[in-house]
Amino acid sequence: MKVSRLGEFGLIDLLAKMIAAAKVDRLKPERPLIGIGDDAAAWRTSDAIELATVDTMVQGVHFSLDTTPWPELGWKSLAINLSDIAAMGGVPEYALVALALPEDTAVADVTALYEGMIELAKQSRTAIVGGNISRAPVVSVTITVIGQSLSQDILRRATARPGDTIAVTGYTGSAAAGLEMLTNQLKFKPEATAYLKNAFLHPVPRLVEGQLLVKHGVKTAIDISDGLLSDLRHICEASKVSARIEVERLPVHPLVRGSFGEKSRVLALSGGEDYELLFTGKDAAIHRVRTEIKCPVTAIGEIIAGEPGKIEIFDAGGKVVKLSRTGWQHF
Amino acid sequence: MKVSRLGEFGLIDLLAKMIAAAKVDRLKPERPLIGIGDDAAAWRTSDAIELATVDTMVQGVHFSLDTTPWPELGWKSLAINLSDIAAMGGVPEYALVALALPEDTAVADVTALYEGMIELAKQSRTAIVGGNISRAPVVSVTITVIGQSLSQDILRRATARPGDTIAVTGYTGSAAAGLEMLTNQLKFKPEATAYLKNAFLHPVPRLVEGQLLVKHGVKTAIDISDGLLSDLRHICEASKVSARIEVERLPVHPLVRGSFGEKSRVLALSGGEDYELLFTGKDAAIHRVRTEIKCPVTAIGEIIAGEPGKIEIFDAGGKVVKLSRTGWQHF
Repeated sequence: MKVSRLGEFGLIDLLAKMIAAAKVDRLKPERPLIGIGDDAAAWRTSDAIELATVDTMVQGVHFSLDTTPWPELGWKSLAINLSDIAAMGGVPEYALVALALPEDTAVADVTALYEGMIELAKQSRTAIVGGNISRAPVVSVTITVIGQSLSQDILRRATARPGDTIAVTGYTGSAAAGLEMLTNQLKFKPEATAYLKNAFLHPVPRLVEGQLLVKHGVKTAIDISDGLLSDLRHICEASKVSARIEVERLPVHPLVRGSFGEKSRVLALSGGEDYELLFTGKDAAIHRVRTEIKCPVTAIGEIIAGEPGKIEIFDAGGKVVKLSRTGWQHF
Repeated sequence: MKVSRLGEFGLIDLLAKMIAAAKVDRLKPERPLIGIGDDAAAWRTSDAIELATVDTMVQGVHFSLDTTPWPELGWKSLAINLSDIAAMGGVPEYALVALALPEDTAVADVTALYEGMIELAKQSRTAIVGGNISRAPVVSVTITVIGQSLSQDILRRATARPGDTIAVTGYTGSAAAGLEMLTNQLKFKPEATAYLKNAFLHPVPRLVEGQLLVKHGVKTAIDISDGLLSDLRHICEASKVSARIEVERLPVHPLVRGSFGEKSRVLALSGGEDYELLFTGKDAAIHRVRTEIKCPVTAIGEIIAGEPGKIEIFDAGGKVVKLSRTGWQHF
């Protein structure tokens, strides 16, 4: 069988099972693992929880240089990893950068990439301490970020419980709207154009927000990389619960609604790369979060008992909205 | 300018300078860095020295599936990173695996790759705790290994001093001889064929040996990935010293000499991927190492004061052997 038929998540499951069967994830019993299969790996040391995550951006798969200039590629390559640390409630510490480049790449483009990466490294206090450069047919940037949790707790995927409220930071669908504008060269008003471009090219990992979630007793979070529905499904599968969400409550930014109309809801449900935090918790915890967090926090639904991974979407009239299983397929 | 003209090491230098100028490597003053630009990044925590390294194997650049079967690709992808930890004198702890695959890759090939990787992970007690899978035009495996030093010291590149003896573990040139045999389908006696194949496909990172070097007071080491000369030049440049080596003393394995004759010396000087440790130290320290180490240790020359990075090679008669600057160019 080809990997394309098994799919990314199927292949990850298969390899995770191989690793678990060989017990090769459990070779350090003195530092017990607490987060394999989550946004980042996590293990307990004598005085902290250490976190580590890796993510890759491949040209022609995750980005095109037509829509993502080099400095923004550097920014985003680091941002997607910091977002995984944020989704664990952690603080980033160190980054290692593995760069693969065609030999005709201009040196100025590589330094531009590093400028974007360095800008975010400074803002997030992530030390770039090493890396590696290889030749390759297309550009790819693989970054590993090592971090820590300041608390004795972290945010997990497998801890959602029936009765939890489902909430999300910021707005969803804005990055996908930005990509659509850039790809199809759509023309909007200057304010909308600037917002959309920024949403796609300059996602800001919700590091402070993730740490506040832990502080106020939230246990469950994921970052929205694949799309709200797809990432909510990851939580529901890991937690063996169902969810119901109300389409009217999705946090669509007014400039996205103004530019994309009805389609903005599809983008908000299924559009990827927002790097907002999707989390679940008791109302009291979410209320405490709201008192301190600086970005919008929107409750969009509820965790319920039921088939693991099942998500029902309701419209304003309380009617179920039909949707295909994948986050990216339009309904 | 294209990156091909600047070269890998030129580009690494340029980016390292950008990072240093932005002070983005020094964002964690509470955990001072001690090893940037070495085989692995190293920083001091309250009770240990932490190590982290990343390396990539790209199809068509670092390997061909014609000569490197999938299980051996998995083994080697981890081995090259463990070798960097060995060259710091450290103990590996955790590995994160970022895999890029064409969509028509067979699932059985990916599981074979993981079988090889898991085998070495078990042998070396390296826990595989996370990863990431992407689509890409060619296969590439990027592994990050996080480790620790059991001692308060590590092995550096910048600590070689005039008067130090230069020594090497095991044999050099065997992996390059193995690649040459596999690529050109050369026929040798069964014993030689088995040895050469194993040297290229199953390098064993010198983890125990690296730890012994630290224990016995050796300060300076690198692993031989690019070739003995090229890697010795890295030590000499970082330490701002010259070196002289005696070509007759190179540790050429009898089966390599038997199969490749005179060419075996060129392979021993310039062939890459042996993943042996090249180290320098006082005779007394090297003598102490010899009492405990299980593999051959061969003294091949001496560190001398002089132009940083300059290496002179002498033949048995004490005559200088001419050589081009690059490790890979034959003389």
